Amino acid sequence: MKFHLLAASAGIAVVASSCAPAKVQRYAWVTGLKPEKAEYYRKLHANPWPSVSKQLRASNIRNFSIYERDIAGKKYLFAYLEYTGKDFAADMKKMADDPETRRWWKETDPCQSPLPDAKKAGKIWADTTELYHLD
Amino acid sequence: MKFHLLAASAGIAVVASSCAPAKVQRYAWVTGLKPEKAEYYRKLHANPWPSVSKQLRASNIRNFSIYERDIAGKKYLFAYLEYTGKDFAADMKKMADDPETRRWWKETDPCQSPLPDAKKAGKIWADTTELYHLD
Repeated sequence: MKFHLLAASAGIAVVASSCAPAKVQRYAWVTGLKPEKAEYYRKLHANPWPSVSKQLRASNIRNFSIYERDIAGKKYLFAYLEYTGKDFAADMKKMADDPETRRWWKETDPCQSPLPDAKKAGKIWADTTELYHLD
Repeated sequence: MKFHLLAASAGIAVVASSCAPAKVQRYAWVTGLKPEKAEYYRKLHANPWPSVSKQLRASNIRNFSIYERDIAGKKYLFAYLEYTGKDFAADMKKMADDPETRRWWKETDPCQSPLPDAKKAGKIWADTTELYHLD
């Protein structure tokens, strides 16, 4: 999963009124999933590598989910995550520089089929636009 | 937005290690957005009715976002939310019985173009499958 992307779709929120308020930025993205690689992609994500989870947390990513859905006969993935750090680009660079994360992406990238605009920009995940948010 | 749906796609999580742990169920759904109604739908969600937000919170919905994205020339909406209650069906029924929420749905439902399986089941939003989650 390549993050070096976006900022346009990020929303700002103060989360969980019962806790000390923490500012988070929300990100949501879409990409295609190759049908012949779907089972492998699901298998990978059912048992994600601890080293990759560790780097995600070190890069201030939390509450990160990926969903699968067929639309008009094609498979798509939707990602939602929250970023709690202060420098998204720097934190994403740490991920891109992490050997374990790069090894993970070598497995996941070939499963994904980026939407045209993402592909053109050399990205895996395409941005979405946040229309609504309720804390 | 009609919720009387799903349970299959819900994930369970313990959120925010710095707070008292709270069990939440995550839901993510997809539906189509009619191009001729897109601007009105965006406008509604840029200024959601306080009465509807109040009922959402009363029905134990939190951290609820809706994203828009074009895929293969068509417009789609992706919803992500967290449910913190103990009886999702009962809490959704409270929403469906709330006159303000029904009035809101009268505005939003005609903007949406459900995917075939959701339409067949009389629903607006189609379920997705959670493949991955990192707290």
